This record gives sequence, structure tokens and C-alpha cells, in this order.
Amino acid sequence: MEISLSPEQVVAATRPTDSRGQTNRRITNIAPLGEAREGDLSFLGDRKYRKDLATTGASVVLMPRDDAADPGENQLFLYFENPSAALARLCAELEVRLRPRPAPGVHPTAVVAEGVRIPPSATVGPFCVIESGASMGENSILEARAYLGRGSSIGADCRLMPGAIVMDGCRLGKRVIVHAGAVIGADGFGYDSDASGHAKIPQVGGVSVGDDVEIGAGTTVDRARFSQTIIGEGTKIDNLVQIGHNVRIGRHCLICAQVGIAGSTTLEDFVVLGGQVGVAGHLRLGAGSQAGAQSGIGRSLEPRSTVFGSPAVPYLLRQKISILQQRLPDLFRRVDKIEAGLEKAFENPVEKG
Amino acid sequence: MEISLSPEQVVAATRPTDSRGQTNRRITNIAPLGEAREGDLSFLGDRKYRKDLATTGASVVLMPRDDAADPGENQLFLYFENPSAALARLCAELEVRLRPRPAPGVHPTAVVAEGVRIPPSATVGPFCVIESGASMGENSILEARAYLGRGSSIGADCRLMPGAIVMDGCRLGKRVIVHAGAVIGADGFGYDSDASGHAKIPQVGGVSVGDDVEIGAGTTVDRARFSQTIIGEGTKIDNLVQIGHNVRIGRHCLICAQVGIAGSTTLEDFVVLGGQVGVAGHLRLGAGSQAGAQSGIGRSLEPRSTVFGSPAVPYLLRQKISILQQRLPDLFRRVDKIEAGLEKAFENPVEKG
Amino acid sequence: MEISLSPEQVVAATRPTDSRGQTNRRITNIAPLGEAREGDLSFLGDRKYRKDLATTGASVVLMPRDDAADPGENQLFLYFENPSAALARLCAELEVRLRPRPAPGVHPTAVVAEGVRIPPSATVGPFCVIESGASMGENSILEARAYLGRGSSIGADCRLMPGAIVMDGCRLGKRVIVHAGAVIGADGFGYDSDASGHAKIPQVGGVSVGDDVEIGAGTTVDRARFSQTIIGEGTKIDNLVQIGHNVRIGRHCLICAQVGIAGSTTLEDFVVLGGQVGVAGHLRLGAGSQAGAQSGIGRSLEPRSTVFGSPAVPYLLRQKISILQQRLPDLFRRVDKIEAGLEKAFENPVEKG
Repeated sequence: MEISLSPEQVVAATRPTDSRGQTNRRITNIAPLGEAREGDLSFLGDRKYRKDLATTGASVVLMPRDDAADPGENQLFLYFENPSAALARLCAELEVRLRPRPAPGVHPTAVVAEGVRIPPSATVGPFCVIESGASMGENSILEARAYLGRGSSIGADCRLMPGAIVMDGCRLGKRVIVHAGAVIGADGFGYDSDASGHAKIPQVGGVSVGDDVEIGAGTTVDRARFSQTIIGEGTKIDNLVQIGHNVRIGRHCLICAQVGIAGSTTLEDFVVLGGQVGVAGHLRLGAGSQAGAQSGIGRSLEPRSTVFGSPAVPYLLRQKISILQQRLPDLFRRVDKIEAGLEKAFENPVEKG
Repeated sequence: MEISLSPEQVVAATRPTDSRGQTNRRITNIAPLGEAREGDLSFLGDRKYRKDLATTGASVVLMPRDDAADPGENQLFLYFENPSAALARLCAELEVRLRPRPAPGVHPTAVVAEGVRIPPSATVGPFCVIESGASMGENSILEARAYLGRGSSIGADCRLMPGAIVMDGCRLGKRVIVHAGAVIGADGFGYDSDASGHAKIPQVGGVSVGDDVEIGAGTTVDRARFSQTIIGEGTKIDNLVQIGHNVRIGRHCLICAQVGIAGSTTLEDFVVLGGQVGVAGHLRLGAGSQAGAQSGIGRSLEPRSTVFGSPAVPYLLRQKISILQQRLPDLFRRVDKIEAGLEKAFENPVEKG
Repeated sequence: MEISLSPEQVVAATRPTDSRGQTNRRITNIAPLGEAREGDLSFLGDRKYRKDLATTGASVVLMPRDDAADPGENQLFLYFENPSAALARLCAELEVRLRPRPAPGVHPTAVVAEGVRIPPSATVGPFCVIESGASMGENSILEARAYLGRGSSIGADCRLMPGAIVMDGCRLGKRVIVHAGAVIGADGFGYDSDASGHAKIPQVGGVSVGDDVEIGAGTTVDRARFSQTIIGEGTKIDNLVQIGHNVRIGRHCLICAQVGIAGSTTLEDFVVLGGQVGVAGHLRLGAGSQAGAQSGIGRSLEPRSTVFGSPAVPYLLRQKISILQQRLPDLFRRVDKIEAGLEKAFENPVEKG
């Protein structure tokens, strides 16, 4: 990413309440205070990094408005109620410059089935495939080689990144982002098994994705056996996550990388699952429940539960177990010693009595 | 998925032994009894849901033939020896309607190497690439942008879903399904390492996949260092699974999502691995052995073993350990108390004697 | 893979110091001693397989030079200082034959943005997309449908396998291999969350990949929030690994399949992570530290640490814990018995005294 902003452009993008010092350097990078050099912009978000302020080489620093530190030579301090929010505004501005929206229109190499209407505001990149009966909302973007299956629809302002695949019969809401290599709507994993093997159960449902959902690179969301696998509005899913068939995820959940959720499980709203968590099938995780990384959840959770470990138990209990486990060698020795002492005591009671 | 079936069409597809009641509603959805509304078809498969029968809004219910419940108004009950099998027949019928087989032929955008013969019954979708020396069996389908590498072959009635990749030198049997984004035949992870770094060991083997195998979305199966990585007939592999080089999987195994199997390990027939299981390299898992979700298998297993946990131990032992772990805080307190009591007792032996 | 080498070709490729016996069979396969049949080449690398030498059907065997065993009839033994290195030389030779380098040039179906200069020595396969401002080094290869994003660069002798995706603003060094389906430079997983939901934090950094790095199939490496996610020179990453935003991986690390590394964590040089390991964010793993499969690393590690388990603790302690856990049922019984004995003893002190 090539950044080049004048100090004036930084001011315009971040809108500080005040400033001190000055610099004539253009900003070409963003870095933490402890690493920033001349030409870098930095920020004091968390007070624990304030020690780095005296020595930072940053040319521009986004500061909390109540901080009394003095800028160095050729250094500009900009003051904000919330420096992190100011940084976010700057990054949003940079994003528009660095990753401009592709122009509307259908690339001549794209294969669009007969009868599919692409809104003039939408973009369809090279080698995209849009199957019959599919539909795209206004301003939506299919980047290079994205795939939109038969009868599937995506709402307005969606973006399928390069190589993203939405299979047939799926519905995506508005402002949904599907990252590169993700697969929405592959068959669920269902078989009728007996001693001769496993007969495939047809998976004829779809996937329904709410507004403002983001689905990470390489993530897979299986279609329902029938009816819908559901991802609720505002839920964010990281990379390489597996969502089984007929799972129902509520609104505003956060699902970190490499989580796996087995079939027919329900997550209520605002559930947070750490990386590599596994959730068994046919469970219900109550609203606001949270699970630490690598937890293995085998039972339903009450709302606002906080669990950890495999098997998942309440967080504090798991912390205790983890500490006490490390003391197991000592505990075994202590019990050995008690037993030996008692044996000696009660074999020769007179000596003790 | 848009379903629309008349009650007569449901009867024709499911072939009930008997019926009671009647409805004039077309069926537009399938749902569990507890959720089904007018226009839905539902089913009583598991007796534990029988309580929902009285209140279900379903217009058609697939029932076990010995059930005496009465249909409601404008409700049709259809009776079967096995309602689940009847539902599977209906879904198979729906699948044909909802996801029709693409027409045979090679899409004009596909790139097929010189000398490759595509059977007239086969389908090659847009942007597919078929490299030199590859071959396709009768009725096989490459969906959009599937890739078939140099010298690789797929048998009759196979289906590579959109974006599926079969690298060079791989052989797939008949009726194999490779889901979107799966990669068969990437290089194994092998290096000669020393203090200067890691030198790549050439991976010149292939992958051999038996008949009736299904490979999930985003799953990766590495080619052998030499000879073949093998997936046996009838084995079903879920999404985001990693199969290392030179692994040999037997017939009719079930490998759930996000499992990882390290190099040169052998699974005999009918092995079942739960989600996120990890298996170390160079092991043998005996026929019919099973491992619970998130197990970490570091040793070979006898046939019909049932293991769980990380490290994996016999299932019942793991269950006991999990329960006793939660009682560790109590155990430590008990041992503290014993020690304190004994210290007191033997410091003042006269009082006690 | 179809191999066919005369014994003379094997000799030419491996350069033995000596030989005994002879065969007229062409070599069509490579197999371990215990499985090799006529027409196969085998090798005695590890002495533990020497027992298989007497009964192997191999036509050619690569032997350590000090081994005194006699070849059988129609069997050729070739002697080497290091038979494994000889095998590697043979496999390298085979690789060139089996997987020849594609011819240089840009496939007519590729879409290359205006102004991008492709070196004449480079190869761009069918359906590749190269966006504006991207650049490719000499002899680099984009296989079928690889994607190189806006402003991204790859150095000389790189290879993007089919379907590999390098998003915008990424820099790859020389001799980097990106396997099929991998995604370099998707957005990091970062949100500003409050009770109303999660606002996306723009991810405007890139990914910087050093020379001689290999990135496995389906692996995802996220772009930095700002500045760079870094993969150091010579590091090898297996399949389906997740590298979070702003992670910095040192030189010559080995990251096995399905590992997940959360944001802003640093790995120093020569770190080794076993399969399915999870590493929390904002940690530092010291040079040469190693973690066993499925470890969950929640704290920074000193250089040369060896840890195991979830939570990860020193390897030997984890081994002890694992063994003692299996003795927990017995320990609980022992403590029950001690308590019962003591209760009896001190309830009836006279009897004992």
C-alpha cells in the first residue's frame, strides 16, 4: 500500500479539535509510537504506550486532547476526543484511495445467464459466472471470478471478493462482504449410514445471510438439509470457519477464525466464539454467551455464559483447573506421603501414642 | 430454494401406504413439526417430537404408520413404514427439480488441452481448465471454473463443484463429488531441515480417490511424496479437512469438518473422526475406531476403539477425567485438610492417644 | 504420476559411489522396502526398516554404503553416503519430467491490466487476472486462474498455483510458492464493537512475504490493519493455516496444517508449531520455540521453549499431567479411603492408641 498524504490532508481527514507543532513531511506510513520514524503517522490510543511518546520519530501523532506532552522538532501533534476514532477516519479515507471501488459495468469476459438483470450501478469482474435466476442489488460488486449460483440473490452494496462462491438458492442481504475463497451453500454433511456404507441425504435447503454480515476468506457455510442455514444481521465471521447445515446464528455475533459449528445448532444474538472453538450439533448458545479460544462446547449455554476449555466449563473453573493440573505431580506426591505416613503410624501405633 | 408441490405430487414422490385427512394447499417449504406453518410439509421421525403434532401448522405430515393421532382441519397425514426414508425420497425428487443436471457439452469459454477427449455425455462449465493428458468419464460434470490437472483422470458420474481443483497426477473413481474450493493433490509438507533452513523435498506422488467418495468444500488432500495418498471407496469427508501426504484412508470412513490427519497415517475401514480431531503421523487407526470431536490422537488405535480428548484416551476414561477435573479444586482442599489434621494430630500425639 | 526410468537413468540421476547386482527392469514406482514389488525402486534410509531388505521385491534399492547385505536375483543395489539425499535427487529429476515447467508467455484468456509489464520469461496461465500496478519477476509462473491484485508484486521464480489469490498491496519475494486456493491479503478481522453491533475497522496495510517462503493450499494470511503482516524468509506454512493481521513471522519457521495465529503476534526465527496449534494475539514466541500439535498458546514463550497442551505448558510437565490425569479416578479413591480411615481412627482414638 502506497500512502502519501500531506499534513493538511491528514488534518482534513481526521478533523482535530486542536493542534501543536508543525511538520513539512508527507505521511507515507502508519506505525505504533515505538516503531514510527520520520514520515510516519502514529497515535496515542492506549495510555500504556505513552512512554514511547518522548522518543517516537513520528512526524504526526494523533493525541488525546488532555495530554500535555510537547511535540518535538518538525513534529505535529493533533488532538482528539478519541484518537482511535480519528485513526479510523483516516484509514477509511486511505482505503478509498488505496482500494478504489471498481467502475460499474459487466466485464466482457463474465458469463451471465440469460434473463439475469444486472443493475447499471453494479460491477461484475472478469471471469465471474452468474447462473440463471440469480439477482444482484444496486452497487453490488462481484470481483474477479466470483460465482453466483442459480436462483441466488445478493442485496444492495454487497461485495464478493475474488473467487468467492455463492452456490444456488442462497440469499444475501445488503452490505454483505464475502471474502476470497469463501463458499456459501455447499452441501451439508448428512448420510444415512449402515453396515454397507453411507447413503447421501439430499441437501435441498439454502443459506440466508442477513444485512451487514462479513464472511471470512476460505470460510464455508453449508446449505440446510431443507429450509435455511441462517446467519443473522451484523454477524462477523473470520477466516476458515465451518458452519454446518441448518445452523442458525443470531445477530451481531463474532465468530473467530477456524471455529466449527456442527449442524442444527442455534446461536442467539451477540454470541462471541474465540478461535478454533468447536460447537457440537443441536445445541443452543444463549444470547451474549462467550467461549474462549479452542473451547469444545458439548452442551447448550445459558445467556451470558462465559466458558472455556475442552470440554467447556465456566471460565473461572477452567482457569482453576488449568492451574491445579500443573500442581498434579505435587498432589500425587503429597497423597503418596500421607499414605506412607499413615501406614507407618498405624502399623506401629504405640510409638505414636 | 423455491419449492412448489401439490399434495398429489408429494404422494407420488413419497408413496405412502395410507393417508388420512386432506389439504388443498401447495407445499412450499419443509420444516420441523414445532415450526411448520400452513403450506409446509413436516414429518414425525423421532418420537420425542410427537408432542408438537397437536399444534403443528403443517399442511402435510409424514407419519409412522402405527400412529393414531388425528389430522387437523385442512391437514393431510401420510403414513409410512419409515417416515425419514419417505422424506429422503421427497428431497431427492426436489433436488432434481431445484438443482437440475447441467446440459452436456463443453462451454465455449473452457480451456481444454489438445488431445483431451471429453465424452459427449459430460459437462464442462465456463472457465474450466483441463490440462494435457487428463480424462473424464461418462456423465461427469465440471462446474464453473473447476480445474483438472495434467494427466489426472476422473471416472464416470463425477462432479467437481465450482472452483474445485484436482491437480496433476490424481485419479478419481466413479461418482466422486468434490465440493467448491477443495484442492486435491497439492504438495505434501516435507522438508530436509538443518540450521540453515528447510530444503523442499519433491512431492512426486499422486492422490487416488475411490468410488462414491465425497470431499467437502475447502478440504485439502495432499499428493504423496511418492506413490499415492489414498481415499478409500465410499468415504465421506466434510469441509476444511486436511489430509497429509501418503495418508491412506480405508473404505466408508466418515471424517467430520476441520479434521487434520498428518502424513503417512493409515485409517482402516469405517473409521469415524469427529470435528476438529487431529491425528499424528505414521499411525494406524483400526477398523471401526471412533474419536470424539477435538480429540488429539497420538498413538495407533485397536479396531473398534472409542477414544476422546486430547490426548485421546478411551471414551469412558475421558468422561471420568472431565468430571473429576471439575472436582480438582475440592480435592486439593481435601488434601490440604488431611495434611493439616495429620500435622496437628502427630504434633500433639498425647491429646489424641 | 507415470514414472518410467531405466536402471541406467536411475544411476545417472542418483550418482552412487558403488553398486552390486543388476536388473533389467524399468522402474515404474517408488515404494517403502516392505511394500516394494518388481519394477519398484526402494531405499534403506532408516535402519529400523533393514529387516524388510531380505524379502523386498524392489528391483533397485538405494543403500547406505557400509551395508553388507547381498542383492537378490535381478536386483540392483546402489550405494550412497546418504541414501535419503540420493532419493531426493531422484525425485527432483522425476519432478522435472512429471511436472514440467509451463512454457513462458501470457495465455490469451488472461486479463492483464493496462501498463502491467510481464517479463518474457514469465508464464501467465488461462483465466489469470493481474490488476493495475502489479508486477511479476523473471521466470515467475501464475498457473490457471491465479489472481494478482492491484499494486502487488511477486519476485523472480515465484509460482502461484491454480486458483491462488494475492490481493492488492502485497509483496512477495523470490522463489515463493503459493499453493492452490490460498488467499494472501484478505482483510483482518477487526471491529469497533458496542451494544449496537460491530463497526468494521478499515484494513489498509498489506502482506510482506520473504524469499523462499511456501504457503499451503487453502491457507489465509490477512493484510495488516496498517503497515504489514510479515512472513519471514524461508518460512514454510502448511495447508489451511490462518495468519491474523499484523502477525510477524520470523525466518525459517515451520507452521503445520490448521494452525491459527491471532493478530499482532510475533514469531521469532525457527519457531515450529505442530498441527492445529492456536496462538493468542499480541504474544511473542522466542526464537526456536516449539509447540506440540493442538497446543493452545496464551502467553509469550522464551527462546527455545518446548510447550504442549491447551493451555500450553512445558512439554515434560504436560506429559506428566496427561499421565496423572488418567490416574485421577484412582487418586480420588485413595483420598476417599484416607479420609474414611482417618475418620474411623480419630472417632475411636482409644482403639488406635
